[in-house]
Amino acid sequence: MTTDRTTHAAETAAPPPRGVSRRALLGLVGGAAAIGAGATVGFGTLRGSATRTSGASGATASAATTYAFTGEHQAGIVTPAQDRLYAAALDLTTTSRDQLVALLRTWTVMAARLTHGLPAGPTGTTSGPYDAPPDDTGEAADLPAAGLTLTFGFGRSLFVGTPAPDGTPGVDRFGLADRLPAALVELPHFPRDALDPARSDGDLIIQACADDPQVAVHAIRNLSRAAFGTATIRWTQLGYGRTSSTSTAQQTPRNLFGFKDGTANVTAEEPDALAEHVWVQPDDADDARTAWLTGGSYLVVRRIRMTVETWDRTSLREQETLVGRTKGTGAPLSGGTEHTEPNLAATGRDGAPLIAARSHVRLAHPSTNGGVRMLRRGYTFTDGNDALGRLDAGLFFMAYVRDPRTHYVPMQTTLARDDALMEYLQHTGSGLFAIPPGIPDGLLRPDGTPLDGARGTYVGASLLA
Amino acid sequence: MTTDRTTHAAETAAPPPRGVSRRALLGLVGGAAAIGAGATVGFGTLRGSATRTSGASGATASAATTYAFTGEHQAGIVTPAQDRLYAAALDLTTTSRDQLVALLRTWTVMAARLTHGLPAGPTGTTSGPYDAPPDDTGEAADLPAAGLTLTFGFGRSLFVGTPAPDGTPGVDRFGLADRLPAALVELPHFPRDALDPARSDGDLIIQACADDPQVAVHAIRNLSRAAFGTATIRWTQLGYGRTSSTSTAQQTPRNLFGFKDGTANVTAEEPDALAEHVWVQPDDADDARTAWLTGGSYLVVRRIRMTVETWDRTSLREQETLVGRTKGTGAPLSGGTEHTEPNLAATGRDGAPLIAARSHVRLAHPSTNGGVRMLRRGYTFTDGNDALGRLDAGLFFMAYVRDPRTHYVPMQTTLARDDALMEYLQHTGSGLFAIPPGIPDGLLRPDGTPLDGARGTYVGASLLA
Repeated sequence: MTTDRTTHAAETAAPPPRGVSRRALLGLVGGAAAIGAGATVGFGTLRGSATRTSGASGATASAATTYAFTGEHQAGIVTPAQDRLYAAALDLTTTSRDQLVALLRTWTVMAARLTHGLPAGPTGTTSGPYDAPPDDTGEAADLPAAGLTLTFGFGRSLFVGTPAPDGTPGVDRFGLADRLPAALVELPHFPRDALDPARSDGDLIIQACADDPQVAVHAIRNLSRAAFGTATIRWTQLGYGRTSSTSTAQQTPRNLFGFKDGTANVTAEEPDALAEHVWVQPDDADDARTAWLTGGSYLVVRRIRMTVETWDRTSLREQETLVGRTKGTGAPLSGGTEHTEPNLAATGRDGAPLIAARSHVRLAHPSTNGGVRMLRRGYTFTDGNDALGRLDAGLFFMAYVRDPRTHYVPMQTTLARDDALMEYLQHTGSGLFAIPPGIPDGLLRPDGTPLDGARGTYVGASLLA
Repeated sequence: MTTDRTTHAAETAAPPPRGVSRRALLGLVGGAAAIGAGATVGFGTLRGSATRTSGASGATASAATTYAFTGEHQAGIVTPAQDRLYAAALDLTTTSRDQLVALLRTWTVMAARLTHGLPAGPTGTTSGPYDAPPDDTGEAADLPAAGLTLTFGFGRSLFVGTPAPDGTPGVDRFGLADRLPAALVELPHFPRDALDPARSDGDLIIQACADDPQVAVHAIRNLSRAAFGTATIRWTQLGYGRTSSTSTAQQTPRNLFGFKDGTANVTAEEPDALAEHVWVQPDDADDARTAWLTGGSYLVVRRIRMTVETWDRTSLREQETLVGRTKGTGAPLSGGTEHTEPNLAATGRDGAPLIAARSHVRLAHPSTNGGVRMLRRGYTFTDGNDALGRLDAGLFFMAYVRDPRTHYVPMQTTLARDDALMEYLQHTGSGLFAIPPGIPDGLLRPDGTPLDGARGTYVGASLLA
């Protein structure tokens, strides 16, 4: 069992001293291993340490960027949005709470290692026993951390199961029903929703973001490998271009409609806005049983197909009117530059509003939505084409909010009903996940093993410990 | 009609002098355009000229790399393999040879522009008429060229149509049957093939490679947009990690089995090997009617799903035995380092060959295949998962060869029958395309318009002019 093996190895092996590479350490003990002619030992060290950037796939000057896995909040939310995404939702195949906890413990150790640029397990790709599967699948062995973050969350079904189509309630498999936050709702059916159940929901979600897609896919592959026998993948999504900035230091990217997207995003540089719109606050708990989510957030995912072929045949005037911004600089049609606040009251010489009544900017603006904002972290996807030759492409919308009942459902209800852009959009997947708080700094070693006194530490411990 | 519009504009507009940016030029003439409050003019210039690398999606220190579209051979073959791939096969919906030629002319102009970092058409994203669709879809407006290459090819069906399942011959729609090179065969059914017709073949292929996937997808999207009414997309494939090097200056990447791949690839630094194994030679023409392909090549594509979940449960010993190389350094199991020539005769103390009889390295080695080599240019893909939660992931194999009858079919016949790795592989898509030679240097301006005296110039002109 991969799970048992990895957990066991990670928890019993003495971790290397901080700053000493695994390669150096293994060099001391591995030289005599008889693993076949020509085989190497001592591999499976800090990834990319020997060959950091010289032409490896996706390796760039900034490829060595490493984000800590620990912190008050999970990484991958306010972290400057990396270029690439791989996300996976999993369903548990076990009904054992102990196995669920064991999986989260394993994932915690692996995630700390992977985000640190280490292989998934301590013996890496090639320095383990020759007659056992390697700890790490190896395809990222020469690649640096590439800014990898791994963010974990829990779907509503983890707490109360999945209702049957006839309305029969789901089963609380893990004794978690009374820990369900009221805000982890079943999202309503929005107008024009065309959701594919196979692309929606899930007990667990893992968001892997990195500047190299191979690093992100490698991480999810190794985490899901550790789930063998406990959980299976329900859906995955590759996103190749970020469509939001989460830091004022980042340039606003463009979506597949060719427009700058996410200009009004909540960013890492706005602590007050993050507290108000993104992080779950102590007062938000329904009662003590749901206080486990304090310091966490909610993640809304929506797979939004964009009918780019039709869009591409509309005039620039039509496109800008629908969006409410110019296509060039992204300035609101009421004037100014990209970051000028839209003037929703401004009218032109004919008395018509410069920002149209059904434009996306107007309908999504905080002033139209009770002042709410969100931290968007979406990615552009392209998943082949349909039988008519049209691209199955669009926006994998991801947004972190403090409460989806106030910060997502009302806005999406308005947009789905009134936004003129909806003519070019189709929501084909959906999910809502509770994102637990982070593991406090100082409780994990860089190789993921808990420090003394913190053996109970793992992602989601506030819910399950 | 997008096609007509783009072609017309590109062929009649006076191109800017070399080295003068489109932004500067448009600034002189566009200032008075009345295109709505807050709208910008003068946009749609050399992409990324103002905002080259500061945090844009995928923009890197090397993002400004530009490869010429013209040359003796098409770019994108010996060009150092870029990090990302987007490929599309199209079927013609017209039966007009004139429309086919018009499409190739349009594509030529657009490809020269796009690979040069220019928008798809001369008015770019926002500086065209306000009541017309923009020339360029815009999502790459802030991105540099990112090493984009565009490589075009012709499938057998372009020449002789597609045979019906009952064996009825296809239709020669364009009067090209007698120009069909004998080597552009229908690939045989190989053992264990599980080909999906919707992922196979096609009249035309476009290979877009770049270091930023958004740049590659943008290029194909704009090229296929120009084909509206003439051709539709049959299949597309996104590849996120290169699995071959085409230059000795590149580090050998790893495939999803975690092994270094393509170590023995023909590289740009081997002109003699390129002439022998990759470029179609004058003597290869069956007769004068097929001499149009001289200086070109053949592209074999195979979508190879890798059952990584099963692979990940095999031992390191089994994996290395199947491949015939070590997983760490990629050295042959007969000893040495990555680039040491495998010693297929070497045996161990027990008399067994160090490189197993059914290992991939042995069966794919030139000495096992009459000395043939190929220029591989494959990419790793991940296209979601199946209903059992297994990743639909693998290798999108692409190889350029001088003659598929000698350089691919025999080897693949051997591999499909005998390679022990086949237990973990499934070929789900397939295609073979004739890749015409390049457009000689000096016949196109940087913006894609032909120079005086070269108005007949376009990709494929040797076949169709």
